[in-house]
Amino acid sequence: MSKPVSSAATDASAVSAVRAYVDAHRAAFLDDLAEWLRIPSVSAQPEHADDVRRSADWLAAHLKATGFPTAEVWRTPGAPAVFAEWPSDDPGAPTVLVYGHHDVQPAAREDGWDTDPFEPVVRGDRLHARGAADDKGQVFFHTLGVRAHLAATGRGAPAVHLKLLVEGEEESGSPHFRDLVEQHRERLAADAVIVSDTGMWSRDTPTVCTGMRGVADCEIELRGPDQDIHSGSFGGAVPNPATAVGRLVAALHDEHARVAIPGFYEGVTELTDRERELFAELPFDEAEWLRTAASYAPYGEAGYTTLERVWARPTAEVNGIGGGYQGAGGKTIIPASAMLKLSFRLVAGQDPDRIEASVRAWVADQVPAGIRHTITFGAPTRPCLTPLDHPALQSVARAMGRAFEQEVRFTREGGSGPAADLQDVLKAPVLFLGVSIPSDGWHAPNEKVDLDLLLKGAETTAYLWTDLAEHWRDTD
Amino acid sequence: MSKPVSSAATDASAVSAVRAYVDAHRAAFLDDLAEWLRIPSVSAQPEHADDVRRSADWLAAHLKATGFPTAEVWRTPGAPAVFAEWPSDDPGAPTVLVYGHHDVQPAAREDGWDTDPFEPVVRGDRLHARGAADDKGQVFFHTLGVRAHLAATGRGAPAVHLKLLVEGEEESGSPHFRDLVEQHRERLAADAVIVSDTGMWSRDTPTVCTGMRGVADCEIELRGPDQDIHSGSFGGAVPNPATAVGRLVAALHDEHARVAIPGFYEGVTELTDRERELFAELPFDEAEWLRTAASYAPYGEAGYTTLERVWARPTAEVNGIGGGYQGAGGKTIIPASAMLKLSFRLVAGQDPDRIEASVRAWVADQVPAGIRHTITFGAPTRPCLTPLDHPALQSVARAMGRAFEQEVRFTREGGSGPAADLQDVLKAPVLFLGVSIPSDGWHAPNEKVDLDLLLKGAETTAYLWTDLAEHWRDTD
Repeated sequence: MSKPVSSAATDASAVSAVRAYVDAHRAAFLDDLAEWLRIPSVSAQPEHADDVRRSADWLAAHLKATGFPTAEVWRTPGAPAVFAEWPSDDPGAPTVLVYGHHDVQPAAREDGWDTDPFEPVVRGDRLHARGAADDKGQVFFHTLGVRAHLAATGRGAPAVHLKLLVEGEEESGSPHFRDLVEQHRERLAADAVIVSDTGMWSRDTPTVCTGMRGVADCEIELRGPDQDIHSGSFGGAVPNPATAVGRLVAALHDEHARVAIPGFYEGVTELTDRERELFAELPFDEAEWLRTAASYAPYGEAGYTTLERVWARPTAEVNGIGGGYQGAGGKTIIPASAMLKLSFRLVAGQDPDRIEASVRAWVADQVPAGIRHTITFGAPTRPCLTPLDHPALQSVARAMGRAFEQEVRFTREGGSGPAADLQDVLKAPVLFLGVSIPSDGWHAPNEKVDLDLLLKGAETTAYLWTDLAEHWRDTD
Repeated sequence: MSKPVSSAATDASAVSAVRAYVDAHRAAFLDDLAEWLRIPSVSAQPEHADDVRRSADWLAAHLKATGFPTAEVWRTPGAPAVFAEWPSDDPGAPTVLVYGHHDVQPAAREDGWDTDPFEPVVRGDRLHARGAADDKGQVFFHTLGVRAHLAATGRGAPAVHLKLLVEGEEESGSPHFRDLVEQHRERLAADAVIVSDTGMWSRDTPTVCTGMRGVADCEIELRGPDQDIHSGSFGGAVPNPATAVGRLVAALHDEHARVAIPGFYEGVTELTDRERELFAELPFDEAEWLRTAASYAPYGEAGYTTLERVWARPTAEVNGIGGGYQGAGGKTIIPASAMLKLSFRLVAGQDPDRIEASVRAWVADQVPAGIRHTITFGAPTRPCLTPLDHPALQSVARAMGRAFEQEVRFTREGGSGPAADLQDVLKAPVLFLGVSIPSDGWHAPNEKVDLDLLLKGAETTAYLWTDLAEHWRDTD
């Protein structure tokens, strides 16, 4: 942060060199990407297990051809990941680990695709194929970017120690990812993680995501009578577990739609004024957002905007509720049991273990006499957040701004992802570099990616490695 | 009420005459009842439709043999009912309609029966068979009772105009009963209805039930997003219908466990001090009651005992609740919809139409912006209650007291039944005369009835027709 930014002249020559390289290799880049996209690496469908393995092998071979001295396929009990490494020629350079995934969502022509999802087609500026944006396209721009970086700087190796980890089970919930990272934690060690599996605000508004929410989830079972009992004979005189489950839900939030579980907000990293200003400057259309949410009203924690609520505030949501008779007509019973599935989105500063303890204490306190309960928690995903003034984040913003020729803005992501495992195990900040836009149709028919944006992604990394090496080292 | 009670001497001679008749005909009564019980008149099982018809025919023939001048099988779109009539020789006598049912619950040896459920067996003082208590046995004691009444009084016809309506679909929810009653309302017209399809407190504590709760039920559907949406992308910023359904449940009751729907208690007939005293005198063992309820704590409206809560207070119970993902594991969604099945037990003074309007207004008031809702009500059953000082109720209590040689006490019934339709259509008070006891195992394997109690039931009716004719006419 202390070193002055490179001069405008150096910038201009670097930019033209990078663009010249990217332009010259655009066609080959597209051909190679299309070849990879033809492999239907659908991790969720067992009949595609071989394809996921082929996809990993293909990528490892391609990374070697790109120049990575090391490119390995890492087996897991499920689908394989690919690891590649290209050390810098400067031993003191920072180490960066890029994360992406090579598996894709299921896709079939009859789901509503205009063309075969595994036969890439370019229409206008867009490449249509399953995985074009999520995530093969965004992994692939790194191969072009590192070559452009070398060409423009004249180096024989990147300015940073570059590592790549490309998972094969992200679309299946990354069941073996954390184990894989823990097992290889020495080889994956990095000063920063760059996740290329997100997007930006819009074609006209390039943005850098600064964090994702974590998530903890649990199932609560409430048991009343040993079996369903007659609501005429007993109604009004014994506790009803379906009533108790409703009260638990109602007690989740206070009248300001804040989560009312004692201790829930403990440690929460609050939004800074600067972040709130930046979010407020984004061209956000709430009516349009509501249409995306297929919802009929905004609703949430008092004192926060919709974007702040989904990006930066922790939540408690009911994912499922059930108890008693749910078939046609009526059945006059007091049900034996009821259940509730809750998930809590967590933000930086919240610890899943503390949240679990708070929820357990709260439930025990709420459940009335005569109702027995059990709570089962799933494996949590931690939140991650990199402060706006983190030097590596500043480098990403600068590199992207150079590629897009405008100042980039900042967003966050409301969802949760395996990136948090990297942050957690490797103790490294997580940065997000994605160029996909909301209309790319992730997980939907006719997934596509904007080719210009994909090349801007490559261009961004070409500047990024230089910028990181220059600016970050100073603050180490 | 104004006429002096018959002299003790008359009483004693009437009692010995009735007992002599009952004793003399005990064996034949049992043989005939056993013959009827052998017909497996299970209304819920289509394969027994012929048996239900046979049961009706058998009963009509038996009632004719008993002496009823009229005994008809009344067809319905479902199973047939039996109607019989025996006018008094005193044209000014009151008219009494006895209600019971000749269909039975399903039963199979493999459900846990010690003997064939449709091959009656006497073990000790008890007759074991499906329908022994519910309700063939309790219909059948009326045939012996009316003959004993005639024998003891020396009359050629009963002291009251006696009518009998024996339904064939009670165990299937009486789907055609109200239509049947409306269709035949002139022939069913009565000054009082006597329902013989309930029981009494215990073998040692004969009781008369003075009322049943009614019931209204509804299903509420709450719709949020048009489809399930991602709780990461949207969680915390749009209303969740599963949260809304929980809040609706929580808002059903206040902190005193009173129903919090405005207007719900309007018109409620409160318990009198005398009724509360009488209930409190019953030998009620709450721990034992809880075991019957398979429950772990009493719970209910503040200021009322458990018996008062189930017998005399209106309730709101959640019979079913559902929404979102209820399978194994977690699913991080905001569900598109949630639903709630509620039933309201009603007491005298509450009108189901007013309750429906109150519930609709309350739900509309509770549901938050962005959640759409629909409510569907089922057909209600009205409550019925006969005041303790009603002369016909006093007659029942007196007749039963004479048969059991002790003062009878009073109960109510928390459930709801087709009796309310009789009260509603015929505009006649409903009285309950039952001699079954809780251990008889209604709807359970090894259903049985205590033969001594069954004969006490016959004896009660033998006194009752005389008592009613004597005491009730005066107040007409």
